Amino acid sequence: MQNIQHYIAQNKDRFINELFELLKIPSISADSAFSQDVINTAEMVKKSLKEAGCDIVEICETDGYPIVYGEKTIDENLPTVLVYGHYDVQPPDPMDLWNSPPFEPVIKETSRHPDGAIFARGACDDKGQFYMHVKAVEFMIKTDQLPCNVKFMIEGEEEVGSKSLSAFVAGNQAKLANDIILISDTGMIANDVPSITTGLRGLSYVEVEMTGPNRDLHSGLYGGAVANPINVLSKMIASLHDENNHITIPGFYDKVEELTAEERGEMAKAPFSLEDYQMALDIESVYGEKGYTTNERNSIRPTLDVNGIWGGYIGEGAKTVIASKAYAKISMRLVPHQDWQEITRLFTEHFENIAPKGVKVKVTPHHGGQGYVTPIDTIGYRAASRAYETTFGKKPIPQRSGGSIPIVSLFEKELGSKTILMGFGLDSDAIHSPNEHFGIWNYLKGIETIPHFYHFFTEMSS
Amino acid sequence: MQNIQHYIAQNKDRFINELFELLKIPSISADSAFSQDVINTAEMVKKSLKEAGCDIVEICETDGYPIVYGEKTIDENLPTVLVYGHYDVQPPDPMDLWNSPPFEPVIKETSRHPDGAIFARGACDDKGQFYMHVKAVEFMIKTDQLPCNVKFMIEGEEEVGSKSLSAFVAGNQAKLANDIILISDTGMIANDVPSITTGLRGLSYVEVEMTGPNRDLHSGLYGGAVANPINVLSKMIASLHDENNHITIPGFYDKVEELTAEERGEMAKAPFSLEDYQMALDIESVYGEKGYTTNERNSIRPTLDVNGIWGGYIGEGAKTVIASKAYAKISMRLVPHQDWQEITRLFTEHFENIAPKGVKVKVTPHHGGQGYVTPIDTIGYRAASRAYETTFGKKPIPQRSGGSIPIVSLFEKELGSKTILMGFGLDSDAIHSPNEHFGIWNYLKGIETIPHFYHFFTEMSS
Repeated sequence: MQNIQHYIAQNKDRFINELFELLKIPSISADSAFSQDVINTAEMVKKSLKEAGCDIVEICETDGYPIVYGEKTIDENLPTVLVYGHYDVQPPDPMDLWNSPPFEPVIKETSRHPDGAIFARGACDDKGQFYMHVKAVEFMIKTDQLPCNVKFMIEGEEEVGSKSLSAFVAGNQAKLANDIILISDTGMIANDVPSITTGLRGLSYVEVEMTGPNRDLHSGLYGGAVANPINVLSKMIASLHDENNHITIPGFYDKVEELTAEERGEMAKAPFSLEDYQMALDIESVYGEKGYTTNERNSIRPTLDVNGIWGGYIGEGAKTVIASKAYAKISMRLVPHQDWQEITRLFTEHFENIAPKGVKVKVTPHHGGQGYVTPIDTIGYRAASRAYETTFGKKPIPQRSGGSIPIVSLFEKELGSKTILMGFGLDSDAIHSPNEHFGIWNYLKGIETIPHFYHFFTEMSS
Repeated sequence: MQNIQHYIAQNKDRFINELFELLKIPSISADSAFSQDVINTAEMVKKSLKEAGCDIVEICETDGYPIVYGEKTIDENLPTVLVYGHYDVQPPDPMDLWNSPPFEPVIKETSRHPDGAIFARGACDDKGQFYMHVKAVEFMIKTDQLPCNVKFMIEGEEEVGSKSLSAFVAGNQAKLANDIILISDTGMIANDVPSITTGLRGLSYVEVEMTGPNRDLHSGLYGGAVANPINVLSKMIASLHDENNHITIPGFYDKVEELTAEERGEMAKAPFSLEDYQMALDIESVYGEKGYTTNERNSIRPTLDVNGIWGGYIGEGAKTVIASKAYAKISMRLVPHQDWQEITRLFTEHFENIAPKGVKVKVTPHHGGQGYVTPIDTIGYRAASRAYETTFGKKPIPQRSGGSIPIVSLFEKELGSKTILMGFGLDSDAIHSPNEHFGIWNYLKGIETIPHFYHFFTEMSS
């Protein structure tokens, strides 16, 4: 498949410009103010699949944002690849930390991306990464080299828990039938250290509301005499970890799989410099669960983090007030075998139990999903491994990621097929952060690698 | 002085309308967006003092907001009363909890105010209360009954720590020379239980900034591996109180005066219903320092409260982010003998000490002031007591307040005179809260009572 490189060289500018158009729409699924933008983005994705050569292209309505479906069937007897991605993005705030507007993509060089990177919200997560598949399929169709059938399912609610996807998948098993699922929504270790994600963490995301007195109070007249919801919330959050940073929720670790020394040894082989890690984040020291390395803490161990907290007076200057209410958004990353709904229940019961008299607690689950581990002895994994080897010149390393893509376990359950996570982003691409970006090199490398997967997978399947 | 009641009956509507005009201007000193409104309010106060009959009226510029000065001298040999008040107000947020716009005053009846109360930010704190003095002086001047000299000093920075006042007072000792200072910026126990505030708490108000990683991070990829500034801030705030709700800052209690059993017995005599208190706040239980009653906790004991906290994603929906920064506004109420600057230093040192590796801490003092206790055997107190007795028909109870009016101790230091705190508001007037209000009855009762103070004070002084 030599001429993929030639095709990329000829169409490089168009590939980038098309992605720019997609990145210009603020498809923020978490904020209803942007709902029309999310819907407009679905339309643009539909158009792009049509132009890539899909025969069937549909906007599938759901209770939430639509799912864009595309299909190119060349022979019922050949294998079918299902590509999943999402066209919605995270909220861009804090806005003031962006060096350029989040929805006005620009190309800038970085130390890790000497060939330049596209800076924009969604550049890497996930518009840039799912669009690699659209362009790779375009190449195979236009050059009559598509070796099997392909289906696309691009959703618009991934950043808010894929609320509508499970019903859609369960209701369309025939339509979505496939032999392997491809997702590019993760990262790799480095441009010269290709890796394939073989594990994901689950997620339970809740919001807590703490109510003390029925109104804001003057801190002079009431200070010290009533429970201050912010002080109490801080105390309760603090109590969720012990002195070794173990999570204190009863039953939280019951189903956590402990890796063998051998497995941990394998993990430890992945190149990692604590010094570089700390320098990149400008921190004096890492911090986390006692007895585990940094790479273990963010992949094979469950965690609990406050993602947002607010209460009382947060404006300029000073206000001597005791707030009536305080709030926090708390998420827990889970490992395989931990059931996110059970964990959500355990958290809720525990949090309500530890609330002192004098405050009322309300816990509202936002969303969640199960963790996932994929075997590396499947045709899918081996085909992916060979594809990387072909384009990177070296074997990819299997890697457990700390992130969550809840739908992966959903797919296995509903469609009975495995998922290959071919991520081409880097951890330093600042996804979910200001100045998110995606390397031009990585974008094009993805487009180059994907057709090889189709080739090897079809070959090995026959 | 019978005809004060007659004068009030004749001018009641005008007294209320004039106060409404003052309340309509959002003189929020904490928010620079309202600076022109604060300045316009000073102009209106100046005009009102002129119309009340002051001979000298000036806007005195400072490094911050101006101080309005007024004076009516009838005889150098007679005593002089200095009236202090403030025309700035607290920020009104949370706006959505107001039943009517904070700067569009309306009169509504309440269970405690059957004759109606004026609802507006500043109605009680302190526009309504300092304006009682303007109207009381107007009465005495217009009816040729002013028995002594009077001076007004109305500032515009009380809600942000009276930043410019100390320099002004220190630089104008002759101009501000007086025999007694009158302030109505506190409350009384109930309309049928008059009280005079004899003690105030000091204040130290700081803002803390916690920095973890140098940018917001994806909580999946980094969760559990780096110090989360919000989790750490919660932990540090929680550690500031022990299991008995004693404050844990080393040296914090060193200078705290412990009251005798006798003094505490006297305090306990003030009418108080824990049941009503809890019901009014809709709380199942009070909460505070072990070994002290509610009335002790909010008056004779120092406290530490978080007045505001924020960090991470606080918008709609969910965002799986580990914030780079988290913030809190923290205030400590202090009792007499605790020095606010020393406490601020102790807090800062302690807070920096307990920060774990992996985060950076910045503590910024906002403002502060000393506590104060006034004796009850002075001419000033006895004159005030008789004035209340005349208009309420019963002796007022001396009461320690939990609030802070830092300038009271400043006045004693710089001007060598005592202060009488004649507050006519009620704790239920929701100052610093949404739906702040001030009873019409209380407003007029203040105007009625104040002239009697002038009469008795002059009489006793001769």
